[in-house]
Amino acid sequence: MLIVQKFGGTSVANPDRIKNVARRVARYRAEGNQVVVVVSAMSGVTDNLIKMARELAPLPNEREMDMLLATGEQTTIALTAIALHGMDVPAISLTGAQAGIVTDGVHTKARIANITPKKVHSLLQEGKVVIVAGFQGQTDEGQITTLGRGGSDLTAIALAAALKADLCQIYTDVDGVYTADPRLAPGARKLSEISYDEMLELAGLGAKVMQSRSVEFAKKFGVVFEVRSSLNDNPGTIVKEETPNMESVVIRGVSLDKNQAKITLVAVPDRPGVAAHVFKAIADASVNVDMIVQNISHNADAPATDLSFTVDKPDLLKATRIIDGLKGKIGFRQAIADENIGKLSIVGVGMRSHPGVAAKLFETLAAAGINIQMISTSEIKISVVVDLTKGEQALRTVHEAFLEKQG
Amino acid sequence: MLIVQKFGGTSVANPDRIKNVARRVARYRAEGNQVVVVVSAMSGVTDNLIKMARELAPLPNEREMDMLLATGEQTTIALTAIALHGMDVPAISLTGAQAGIVTDGVHTKARIANITPKKVHSLLQEGKVVIVAGFQGQTDEGQITTLGRGGSDLTAIALAAALKADLCQIYTDVDGVYTADPRLAPGARKLSEISYDEMLELAGLGAKVMQSRSVEFAKKFGVVFEVRSSLNDNPGTIVKEETPNMESVVIRGVSLDKNQAKITLVAVPDRPGVAAHVFKAIADASVNVDMIVQNISHNADAPATDLSFTVDKPDLLKATRIIDGLKGKIGFRQAIADENIGKLSIVGVGMRSHPGVAAKLFETLAAAGINIQMISTSEIKISVVVDLTKGEQALRTVHEAFLEKQG
Repeated sequence: MLIVQKFGGTSVANPDRIKNVARRVARYRAEGNQVVVVVSAMSGVTDNLIKMARELAPLPNEREMDMLLATGEQTTIALTAIALHGMDVPAISLTGAQAGIVTDGVHTKARIANITPKKVHSLLQEGKVVIVAGFQGQTDEGQITTLGRGGSDLTAIALAAALKADLCQIYTDVDGVYTADPRLAPGARKLSEISYDEMLELAGLGAKVMQSRSVEFAKKFGVVFEVRSSLNDNPGTIVKEETPNMESVVIRGVSLDKNQAKITLVAVPDRPGVAAHVFKAIADASVNVDMIVQNISHNADAPATDLSFTVDKPDLLKATRIIDGLKGKIGFRQAIADENIGKLSIVGVGMRSHPGVAAKLFETLAAAGINIQMISTSEIKISVVVDLTKGEQALRTVHEAFLEKQG
Repeated sequence: MLIVQKFGGTSVANPDRIKNVARRVARYRAEGNQVVVVVSAMSGVTDNLIKMARELAPLPNEREMDMLLATGEQTTIALTAIALHGMDVPAISLTGAQAGIVTDGVHTKARIANITPKKVHSLLQEGKVVIVAGFQGQTDEGQITTLGRGGSDLTAIALAAALKADLCQIYTDVDGVYTADPRLAPGARKLSEISYDEMLELAGLGAKVMQSRSVEFAKKFGVVFEVRSSLNDNPGTIVKEETPNMESVVIRGVSLDKNQAKITLVAVPDRPGVAAHVFKAIADASVNVDMIVQNISHNADAPATDLSFTVDKPDLLKATRIIDGLKGKIGFRQAIADENIGKLSIVGVGMRSHPGVAAKLFETLAAAGINIQMISTSEIKISVVVDLTKGEQALRTVHEAFLEKQG
């Protein structure tokens, strides 16, 4: 088999951990597999480089940041190759450029344009483990680029696609994808499989296993991958295209995002263009809006409604300033900011074919005396905003109702 | 003017020092010059990388060591570019490969095969300061290589040659080349100029300003360069081809090398091939021999002589073991090792045209009661081995005699 294995920063944080990675790689190779290894920078290294750059210029040039940050992964590939040599395993390291990863020229968040896997293939044919620097590539003009957050996962998945790998393993410090955060829900179980779409919803919900971008790429190119732990040999969670039997499970997982804040505009005049105006201004300031809830107007004489939305907590101050600046133009009564909220979400492709999921969620929360402040739904997800102090209780209760007392 | 400026590891050891470098570069550029900057890895970085590699394999693969160590300079070029941007100076960093530095494939001690300075030239034309990673290059096949010790100086001098630069400045933590180490000889003076050959002799004598290799390259391609301090604006020492007026100075400098040890083979049979046998065995073990002294045989019946040579102190044990192993074959009486020696040398192209220099050296030492153990001479250098405890006194005395009471 041809296997692509990706190890993140904590898995290669020091020489001892790199040896652990090398041992695992050596084992897979000894079993007769061809192995391509993708590694991130050792944890802490990238942050330290960014810190130094900021001491030199408040807003460092992005081309130079790529030149700087690419050294992190380059260090790890060389050390990993050396560790494998120390175990008598033939291995060779390749920078992103050497591995044929060509990107566009958008420094610090480049997109992979194409991968020419010829060199990787021929080195594999020579019997070598090929170690590729994650997170980086090169433009057609020979400029070093980086892929932005979660870039090493993307490298692994894109390489798996280009190499037509039989297996792609993403090693992290957790055992896989869980029905909920086990620290919050004691009954949480590891999932043996999950669909791309469910994984995408969870990725957007603070389940910090992977960035949406890599999952989207995998979905687009049909790369089946496994999320598993670098600390043990437990099987992980397989992420793949939805299969019919996945629908038999109504809810795949429950998540709680405590990193959101809510802004409510009270008594907003109900006329066309108001929402557009508000969210244009917020987007212009690069503030990400997650949930948006607006209800119908109920006063026919002076039509007005309440408009609520959530933003990332660190952006709350920025967002409220923008909203305050719009008050005169739009004419709402007041804006209320609240950062003491938690967003609870349930995700599952099965909810498409199982009616009553939302009702069951609301009943479960009501029975626990938990008030719902906002509701938002997608085809395979229902999110509710609750008081932050009730968040963990809500997660436990909902997890019990949907994932422990099921069937 | 087109100026190449090279800054070593201590000059770029942290963001504050990098800012100092950037300020100096900015000043030269503001005066209307085109500036190419060559930087080393921040001091300590390379050692740390080597330490990690050795934790992973006792003898790390050299191709991977180059992959690893090249990150050190790449980090510095990016930070230096960012620092210049922070001062509103347009600047761009280039790896050795991007700067067109092509080397042979001898990893960890590659030789520069050729430099294609087209890209550097065109970036200079755009008004940018071009910052090039020292110490590294790339083979024709795209493998990253490093140039070995003193490699960044070599990069600077080779770039100066390829760019036909008007000036090449090597910044260090000393003010230039001195007549002797000022810590040992209070009367030591900074030289305003020195010939390549004199510099070469001094480089081989523990005057740690520069590696011989870079000086040889400069001599070969006629690159005039200046050794000066990155801590102040004092003019440094110009290193260039010998000029007639240089000969008027008999002695350019005095140096003391305390890092040598002496081995004497007593009563070596005086027959052909003995010396070859000894030094072949020592060379095979990669031990560097510096001075070799053998006198004529004085016993016609059983011709035997004493053979002395010096090696680097850390190699003494290795060398004595080799010699002991040869005792049976060669049949010398005994081998005596002595690490309590100092090698004092005087260097000057002027000694070619001024007879009596050696005599004056020996008289000076005799007058101070310092015994000479070995003597070795070249065209522009005389070295003597004295007892280590007398070394510094010898240096002071000789410096006074030749360089303070001169003329």
